Order: sequence, then C-alpha cells, then structure tokens
Amino acid sequence: MDGTIKPTPDQQSLLAARYGAGAPAAGPWNAIIAHLVNHRSVRGYKTDPVPDGTLETLITAASSAATSSNLQTWSVVVVDDPAVRAELARIAGGQKHIEQCPLFMVWIADTSRNERLGIEAGKPLEGLPYLETFLVAAIDAALASQNAVVAAEALGLSTVYIGALRNNVARVAELLGLPPGAGPVFGLCVGYPLEGREGEIKPRLPQSLVVHHGKYDLAKEAALRAAYDKEMEGFSARHEMAAATWSERVIDRNGTVASLRGRDKLAEHLRGLGFPLK
Amino acid sequence: MDGTIKPTPDQQSLLAARYGAGAPAAGPWNAIIAHLVNHRSVRGYKTDPVPDGTLETLITAASSAATSSNLQTWSVVVVDDPAVRAELARIAGGQKHIEQCPLFMVWIADTSRNERLGIEAGKPLEGLPYLETFLVAAIDAALASQNAVVAAEALGLSTVYIGALRNNVARVAELLGLPPGAGPVFGLCVGYPLEGREGEIKPRLPQSLVVHHGKYDLAKEAALRAAYDKEMEGFSARHEMAAATWSERVIDRNGTVASLRGRDKLAEHLRGLGFPLK
Repeated sequence: MDGTIKPTPDQQSLLAARYGAGAPAAGPWNAIIAHLVNHRSVRGYKTDPVPDGTLETLITAASSAATSSNLQTWSVVVVDDPAVRAELARIAGGQKHIEQCPLFMVWIADTSRNERLGIEAGKPLEGLPYLETFLVAAIDAALASQNAVVAAEALGLSTVYIGALRNNVARVAELLGLPPGAGPVFGLCVGYPLEGREGEIKPRLPQSLVVHHGKYDLAKEAALRAAYDKEMEGFSARHEMAAATWSERVIDRNGTVASLRGRDKLAEHLRGLGFPLK
Repeated sequence: MDGTIKPTPDQQSLLAARYGAGAPAAGPWNAIIAHLVNHRSVRGYKTDPVPDGTLETLITAASSAATSSNLQTWSVVVVDDPAVRAELARIAGGQKHIEQCPLFMVWIADTSRNERLGIEAGKPLEGLPYLETFLVAAIDAALASQNAVVAAEALGLSTVYIGALRNNVARVAELLGLPPGAGPVFGLCVGYPLEGREGEIKPRLPQSLVVHHGKYDLAKEAALRAAYDKEMEGFSARHEMAAATWSERVIDRNGTVASLRGRDKLAEHLRGLGFPLK
C-alpha cells in the first residue's frame, strides 16, 4: 500500500467532472493536485481493517497542518465499541457507514488541554470563554482532519465526514467522556468502499461564483447559479437524489428549523460543554 | 512547475522533525504523505508573481474538498490593491508578508449566497440564523483552504494562514464589500519564500496526547506535556522566539482578554455582519 500513488483520471477529465461545462482552463498540475481533485465521499464500507500504522500516519499528516499560534486545540477520539458506534449512527440520522467502517474518528474542538495547563501553572486562561477560542479550535480540527483525509486517500482509502454528530453534541461528548472545554465537531469514516459505492466526483459551483477580486461581486450570481442547477440536475438524476437541483437541495437542508435536525440547539449544547461562546 | 513533485526528506527525518524523540513507528507512506508532513508556514515572501493559472488550480483543489450537504458556504476574495493589503496587514498586527506575497486570499464563511437563493425562490431559509450554520460555513472554508494549501505546496509555493484578520472582522468585511451573511474567517498568503525564510518543520504535541481510544484519557497528559515543552525549548532557542516552552506560549496567547487582540469582540462583530449565532 505504501510507496506508489494510485493513478487518477487525466487533468481534463477531472476538471470536467468537477465543474462540467464551466471548467477553468487547465493550469499548473501534478499528481498531488490530481489526487485532491479526484476526491469523492464514500458512504458504504467493507469491514476489512486498515493496515497497521494507518492511524499513526493519518495523525502525522493531521498534526502537520497549520494550527493557530501552535495552540493545537484539537483532539481525536477513535471509536471501536460497536454499541457506541451504533448510538453515534443513530444520532447521525441512521448513517450505517459509521458502524461499518474499520476506522471511525471523532474530531474534537479541544481547549480543555490548554485550560488544564493554565490552571496547573497557576495562570488560568482568561482568553478561553470567547467564541473566538471555540472557533479557532473548530478550524484547527478542520485543517487537521482535511490533511488526514488527503493522506487516507493517498493510501487508497476512502472517507466521509459526519457533520450530523452535531445533531446532539451533548450526548456524543458524554459517550466519549469528554472533559469541559472539549466539543465534538464532526466524525470521519475511513475504510475501503463496498463494490459499487466508490462514489462519483460531485460537480461544484463555478469558480466565478465563489472567487471575487477586490470586492464581493453579485453581478453574475443568478445566471451562474442557474447553470449550476442545470449541471446538478444531471448528477442528481444519475444518483436518484431526492432534490433535483442544487437550489432545491439548499432549501431542503436549511429551509426550516426542523431541517437542522437538532443542531438549532448547538450553541446551548456547547455552553453546557464548557464553551461560554462570549 | 507542473508535472514533477519536489523531493522531500525521507520518512524517518520527517517523523523526527515533526515529533522529536516521541515520533511514532514508521507506518504506511508515500510522496503525498511526505508533502503533507513537510509543511512549514512562511512569513517572508519574494514579490515574484505566481504562474498563470495558479489561482484556478488552487480553487479547483479547494472546491474538491468535502462540504457539508454540498451547501458550499464559502467564498474567497483575492486582494491585490496595495492600500487594502496595507490596512489588512495593520489589522493583523503588522504582518508585512500580507503586503509582500504575490497572492493574498481572504476566506469567507458565506451563507449569504444561499440566503439570496432562498429569498429569490420565495422560500427564506429559516435555518440560517443559528451558530450551527455559521460553524458549517467556517468549517467549509477551512476544509477548502487546507486543500488549497496542500495544492500550493505541491506546486512549490509556500503559504501562511492569517487568523489575525479576525482582530477586526467588521473592518475587513467593509474593505471587501461583503454582503450580510458573509464573514471573513482568515487570510492566506501564497508565494515564494525569501531566501532564509523557508521555515523549519515545527514539532507538534505527541500523538498519545492528541489521540484517545474509546474515551478521553487524561492519565498521561502532564508527563507528555512536559516532554513536549522540552522539545519546543530547543526549537524556540533556534528561532529566538519570546516564549521558551509551549506552555509559556499558550499562556502568552490565551492568558488574558487583551491577548485576544480584539477578537473578544468576534461574536459581536459577526452579529453585526448578519450572523445572529442563535
């Protein structure tokens, strides 16, 4: 498994898959870029274990990401217990891949380690109770986990993030025995895809809708969004997704408070976990 | 610049640089992992421009990262105007590399695009005013930007995140003409390092302090932290850093409200930018 980098489709095919008709001209490129662009999330796993040392390599990659002021306010809890996995899957709205995958990690925004350090040094950290400090920890966890994802895919493994753990972070924290100041931000499944579940590259919004120069520019938004809706209609039909266009999907996911599936209580739950979010 | 991947130190050297004496045993590995582990943040740039097409390739990599429910709630503003760069450098506490680097991007947690979509469809998104929705957008931006960082380094470029834009997100948003529901989360410098400013791999906390199995485990924390403080003492001496140990650095950065350099107002500023954070 080590040493070689798995082949990927060529640059033109990858750009076309990622952006459809609106793909940018082919710029600088190499095998690492191709691997990043070839990402697909996988939601069906074989139970085959990952090779020995995989977790350590993924964490080495994660630790190598930038972290704000080297504060390193993230942690990971690896969950093996089938009963805990089953409850996490239930919290996440019945995502069976949480139970199937050989490696399941919960990524934690963790200011508790530094809080203990301050207390032990007789200098309690007065900067902790702020939204900023929680946000830094969540961003630290995200940068680290994304490096772990890139590393996993480089080793021929697949992944999927599980944001739906936030449906009930209070219960997730309890299951993992988290101390105050440690809050779950998302899960991550790692493993080998079931046959036929390898996923497809999902088209994304055109770059001209996402990238602005100098000032945020609304001029072309409606037309570009319509083009993307059309692009996603084809993808959705191939994958039998409920919402045909991207716009419908967005409305489905953020349209009502109920669509947040409990995450409207996130601030309240985080306060309960020791993040005042001032 | 494209095609070839620059050589990196061997696996043992990289593990030793990243963890010192406490490095894990050598696990699965390849050139992509080596590139991730070889990361170093660079704070001094030549003014040489990046090659044509670089921005598009970085954004292609960024767009290829996972995004919660495909909501894609992030945007980028590329800043070229020297006067704006100078003010951003000032907001960030005098970080001159913001003015030097050939490519400077501000990453935005952007729920405004989806908000406009809902309004135009006659279905205002009731799920937006929650902390969850802002957090998803910030995490989306972080996953995307980390892919851009990996891509930049794969192309022989260097980077540094600028979290200190959050010292005053209200003013940053004003400078970039952001609509309500779009909030700056951090900046990113991209370019070629000045000679002698290529940086060194920074040692990180030992894996046994960051990774927990089943339940969060405090048993070895104090001893492991002491070992890391010792490791960082050597690094700090080589780099003439003010705080000798990591513990001192943490206390320096989070010890007082003043140490947040204005970011204690982040929640208030974000509310002003159209994120109620309910």
